[in-house]
Amino acid sequence: MAPTRNGRLLFNEIPTGFPEPGKTTIYDTSNTIDLENEPLNGGVLVKTLALSVDPYMRVQMRPADVESYMPPFIVGQPIYSLGIGKVIRSEHEKFKAGDYVYGVMEHAEYSKPNPDFPFFGIKVVKPEPGLPYSVYLGTAGMAGQTAFFGWKEYANAKAGETVFVSGGAGPVGTLVIQLAKQEGLKVIASAGSDEKVQILKDVGADVAFNYKTVNTLDVLKKEGPLNVYWDNVGGSALDAALETAVNHARFIECGAISTYNSKDGVNMKNIDQIYARRITLYGFLVADLAPKWIDEFYRVIPKQLASGEIKYQEDRTNGLENAGEALREVQTGKNTGKKVIVVANE
Amino acid sequence: MAPTRNGRLLFNEIPTGFPEPGKTTIYDTSNTIDLENEPLNGGVLVKTLALSVDPYMRVQMRPADVESYMPPFIVGQPIYSLGIGKVIRSEHEKFKAGDYVYGVMEHAEYSKPNPDFPFFGIKVVKPEPGLPYSVYLGTAGMAGQTAFFGWKEYANAKAGETVFVSGGAGPVGTLVIQLAKQEGLKVIASAGSDEKVQILKDVGADVAFNYKTVNTLDVLKKEGPLNVYWDNVGGSALDAALETAVNHARFIECGAISTYNSKDGVNMKNIDQIYARRITLYGFLVADLAPKWIDEFYRVIPKQLASGEIKYQEDRTNGLENAGEALREVQTGKNTGKKVIVVANE
Repeated sequence: MAPTRNGRLLFNEIPTGFPEPGKTTIYDTSNTIDLENEPLNGGVLVKTLALSVDPYMRVQMRPADVESYMPPFIVGQPIYSLGIGKVIRSEHEKFKAGDYVYGVMEHAEYSKPNPDFPFFGIKVVKPEPGLPYSVYLGTAGMAGQTAFFGWKEYANAKAGETVFVSGGAGPVGTLVIQLAKQEGLKVIASAGSDEKVQILKDVGADVAFNYKTVNTLDVLKKEGPLNVYWDNVGGSALDAALETAVNHARFIECGAISTYNSKDGVNMKNIDQIYARRITLYGFLVADLAPKWIDEFYRVIPKQLASGEIKYQEDRTNGLENAGEALREVQTGKNTGKKVIVVANE
Repeated sequence: MAPTRNGRLLFNEIPTGFPEPGKTTIYDTSNTIDLENEPLNGGVLVKTLALSVDPYMRVQMRPADVESYMPPFIVGQPIYSLGIGKVIRSEHEKFKAGDYVYGVMEHAEYSKPNPDFPFFGIKVVKPEPGLPYSVYLGTAGMAGQTAFFGWKEYANAKAGETVFVSGGAGPVGTLVIQLAKQEGLKVIASAGSDEKVQILKDVGADVAFNYKTVNTLDVLKKEGPLNVYWDNVGGSALDAALETAVNHARFIECGAISTYNSKDGVNMKNIDQIYARRITLYGFLVADLAPKWIDEFYRVIPKQLASGEIKYQEDRTNGLENAGEALREVQTGKNTGKKVIVVANE
């Protein structure tokens, strides 16, 4: 069989500000691959169908000798992220040709992803009929798992209670909102633009507001008190939630995006309410809870997504050649809904 | 029987700064009581043996129409706090003459405390032979219960782990230190004076430091990382602990004394570590955990205090006529160890 073109998005240069297509990353088509004879050495060859673009990827665009919680991209090599693909050939016992797989993969049309990397290594998924593969990168993927695992493990919610979801318009927040509504809670949710506030309303939030134009504490004082707080934001949103929580409230600490871009710290006035109101704050990362909840997640959520019982927001970029622009949109907050790059339709 | 003098410490005037003996409170001996004929109306008559003096009593020295988490003292009436006494007469089925009782009582030589107030109402205690009654106001009382309940419920500690106890020289902290040492932990503890650092060492802390002269974060970086943090302080101590915690650390939020006297809030740089390190922060108040742990507490702790296996620090004031000065000492931080007023020796 003739060699096939293997388009790849190469990391070209460490950006100083926002990543720039054609400079930070370059779409390269000079590489080819012989799909039938490429040596696998016990691994798998995968055709990429869709790739996830996430805010944390900016952290990976740094010098290789700087430590952080995510490994750095290497200049001259393809960048990588979570993706979904189809197995073309396999020498690994867990995979066979035709399997759909989900996990970390290179931004390339074809690649040989690592099946043995803990949690983020590729795994077989059985796509739900009627559900686009790309949803496995968002609400049916790690973001949805984050929402589902954290909610199931910590919310301990009862119908009639009230939850506040900060940063609610992303793929984590929108599923949290819908899980809470399924369980009969009143949902207050915030986001940073009127367009995102509309997303909050579309997925069923009872009270949705733009935290840039409305004071969070005022809303919570009027619409609370809070039994549960799902925190994607930290900082003043967390402080306002502490001030308006009931005794024995549960705070699920999922992120602190308000603090990512500042080394100055944030002013907190209500730390003493943690003990005064006997609040528990649960910090968690999705991988820790996977062994307990992932089977239930795949049993429940993809079906409800396919049937429309649960909604998702997706913002698609078509073609790997446009991936550099997709990276930029996510960093500048231009995307509406979960950003995915559709690389191929099987 | 002739009427008996009933000396009382009356709340006389709301202070603007520190309470002043003879002004904020007045020791009054004009009242008498007929111990044999005083009507009980189904209650009990108690002879006061010892009374607790606590920092939070300052909050009660305020106008009666100002809300707070503790009820206000009433001008012209005796102040009150936790105390230990002996029942002289009883019309209540739970008490008989000769019983020792512990609970909230007036600062008076004789009083009729309420047995039915939740948690703080008087209850019978059986003093351990060899243990002064006054210890039931500190390490064998609510402070000790706070330490014991919180540690048992949340620490989930293993031998060889490391705990940091901030504000460790009080009756809560000293018991936490000793419980941690009993379980084989390395204990780091802080206090605000060299005299108090000596108390930390006396009860067995492996690393003891004065946070006013040594930087907490430097100590924790050198002596950590922390598996457990017992927080009496909040603020920068909490922030330093977040920065030096292991993944899945347990933070027991018992108090936030650093924030009590400031409405400005505190600068926190490490809120994002709550989720990044999957830390759980447990806020609690002693009364909530009492049903689960109080029997074990009374079975275990008084015996170990009587035998000397567990140490306590007590700072005694003799005579109710000196109670006003005791109140002042606690507010100005002059006391060393748990402050108690010894009112009578049976």
